[in-house]
Amino acid sequence: MFTPDELTDDKFLCGRLRLWQPAKGYRAATDPVLLAAACPAGPGESVLDLGCGAGAAALCLAARVPGVLLAGLEVQEAYADLARRNAARNGIAMEVFTGDLRHMPKALRHDFDHVIANPPYYPPGGSPSPLPGRATAMQVDQVPLSEWVAAATRRLRPGGWLTLIAGADGLPDLLAALPPKLGSGSVLPLTPREGRPAGRIILRARKGGRAPFRLLAPFVIHRGDRHEGDREDYTDDANAVLREGCALSAPFGELSGIAAPRRSVSGDTTRGL
Amino acid sequence: MFTPDELTDDKFLCGRLRLWQPAKGYRAATDPVLLAAACPAGPGESVLDLGCGAGAAALCLAARVPGVLLAGLEVQEAYADLARRNAARNGIAMEVFTGDLRHMPKALRHDFDHVIANPPYYPPGGSPSPLPGRATAMQVDQVPLSEWVAAATRRLRPGGWLTLIAGADGLPDLLAALPPKLGSGSVLPLTPREGRPAGRIILRARKGGRAPFRLLAPFVIHRGDRHEGDREDYTDDANAVLREGCALSAPFGELSGIAAPRRSVSGDTTRGL
Repeated sequence: MFTPDELTDDKFLCGRLRLWQPAKGYRAATDPVLLAAACPAGPGESVLDLGCGAGAAALCLAARVPGVLLAGLEVQEAYADLARRNAARNGIAMEVFTGDLRHMPKALRHDFDHVIANPPYYPPGGSPSPLPGRATAMQVDQVPLSEWVAAATRRLRPGGWLTLIAGADGLPDLLAALPPKLGSGSVLPLTPREGRPAGRIILRARKGGRAPFRLLAPFVIHRGDRHEGDREDYTDDANAVLREGCALSAPFGELSGIAAPRRSVSGDTTRGL
Repeated sequence: MFTPDELTDDKFLCGRLRLWQPAKGYRAATDPVLLAAACPAGPGESVLDLGCGAGAAALCLAARVPGVLLAGLEVQEAYADLARRNAARNGIAMEVFTGDLRHMPKALRHDFDHVIANPPYYPPGGSPSPLPGRATAMQVDQVPLSEWVAAATRRLRPGGWLTLIAGADGLPDLLAALPPKLGSGSVLPLTPREGRPAGRIILRARKGGRAPFRLLAPFVIHRGDRHEGDREDYTDDANAVLREGCALSAPFGELSGIAAPRRSVSGDTTRGL
């Protein structure tokens, strides 16, 4: 367990959430916020956060969608404990289990409407951190992406959605890992600035979905060509998601009035329901 | 063979190339031009065009890069014949073989510096054409993408590059088909208009390459939100490629002064050379 002096108290979504995080080790930044924003969960639906860490993604989702039923799985007990404390202090109900996604705890072996995941990964050219917590959270070799996808697929009800955030360099492994049962895939590139290669991607796919795969227009995080000084330079869209807690649904074609794609959810058909 | 009245005489690259194409059946449009523009071949290098059709991609490449050594493989004799005639009428040397990429003709079983390919595919929801030529050229089930990639990889020298254009909906199959020998992959999304999902993608990968995979910023073909009347509405970048015959190299980071990525070719290391 972390002692109080090993923790920092961090604001998410303009302070709508307060989360304890370890001062050293894996610390959530924008990834879990973007992941939560991209999950198409509706009120009252069940969501499993695979590898939930200190709970940032699941709790951000609860801050946006009323009445979601949250469960989390985390392999490191110290982080699972933190997730439980973070849920409690924000008045959000979340069941957190300590365990390995390759050996799913019995209590989680039922069908969920949604699975979200932010699997740890090394940035290209990165190396393992000497800090134990961070080393585990970032140890990409420990559990390959294919096992994350397989575990998530097993836990989804037919028609349920996987939403996953990963490094863009992991896209080949990720798409190669998609089982035939997961269809209607969409990849949203997340790019630091207009015209740059994607740094991360969000994948959405549906169990039994049959719509063609789509590679969406990038979601741009920062304005301008480079970082200027200390002031925040989020694009309006990124600001809406990262600070105001809005859904990241327009790029997936889920709001009208967007130049972008057709709806991906309605009009989608599923097989094997 | 096609009879003269079954052919049209089409201009490519503002008339720098004139190609006979069947009036009915598979007709090249922008795909082979974009493919040729994205191939990083230098003067004097050897290039194999897998499934060369009437020769559009290979001949566009020759129009840009002096002294490339062109070979083509085409399964339909009528198209192979047309490719030979198109090469001759444009004064470009190109050896064209009729055959199946799964049973590579002996004459082509050597190492190439580059392989380019525009595998046929159905648009999502499309169906086979009743026209025999088109049916073969578009028959995606006939030879899976994985076989195209495998055949291309066998034909590349260590350090050689595959450049391939495909439908964006085929990206999962394509990335899943990449053998470990092909590294340093980049995917360039081609999008009809700003903010839209990609319609097609260009994949580049290098035999023995070890650079991380990159998902690049989209290359936008048309300006504005929608097609207005009959006038051409290419973006400046698309115009440079499709009409002026420029290389599509900037998005891959190969020109300086681009906001975009680091160079992908220099600084790249190869293994097994």
